[in-house]
Amino acid sequence: MHSFKGVELIKKANIYFDGNVTSRTFIDTDGSKKSLGIMMKGEYLFGTVEAEIMEIIEGHVEVKLKGEKEWKTYRSGSSFEVVANSSFDIKVLEITDYFCSYIK
Amino acid sequence: MHSFKGVELIKKANIYFDGNVTSRTFIDTDGSKKSLGIMMKGEYLFGTVEAEIMEIIEGHVEVKLKGEKEWKTYRSGSSFEVVANSSFDIKVLEITDYFCSYIK
Repeated sequence: MHSFKGVELIKKANIYFDGNVTSRTFIDTDGSKKSLGIMMKGEYLFGTVEAEIMEIIEGHVEVKLKGEKEWKTYRSGSSFEVVANSSFDIKVLEITDYFCSYIK
Repeated sequence: MHSFKGVELIKKANIYFDGNVTSRTFIDTDGSKKSLGIMMKGEYLFGTVEAEIMEIIEGHVEVKLKGEKEWKTYRSGSSFEVVANSSFDIKVLEITDYFCSYIK
């Protein structure tokens, strides 16, 4: 799927980490909230409230989920899940275009 | 207007200047192409093919249109127009969230 049709796109960006991570939120046709974002190179810690799926559209990251010891590598076209009320460390090795959706 | 409803949002980001400028394209309900983007601090030269309106949703930039001598300042909520087949220099003084639409 190269586009999302019939969605409501929020105008204002979400800006995190001094702009090194930014995203745009949209409401999909089923009412679910999703976001498309960009992460510049760097290392970040993200918390989750809802469980989420992070798809790496393009880029290269290493991720360590809370409670895990190993870093796992994700590149273009791969994705990982994060449980609710948790967190993950992410090392962005190349500028990364991502898609985040939430699991109900 | 805080959101655009019923639009088609292209999944993949547009990435310029090593990721210092990124945007998301969407097709509005009237079929026109628009984009929402982020510019990190820096100085950039953009070319235009179509005439466009650049709205600074949030941020602080200075702009010098092709053929002009003076830099003009634009902050949150202001906008400027650029004619077709032209260019403009932009100094981004604070991370800037922008909305670009085209004039037919």
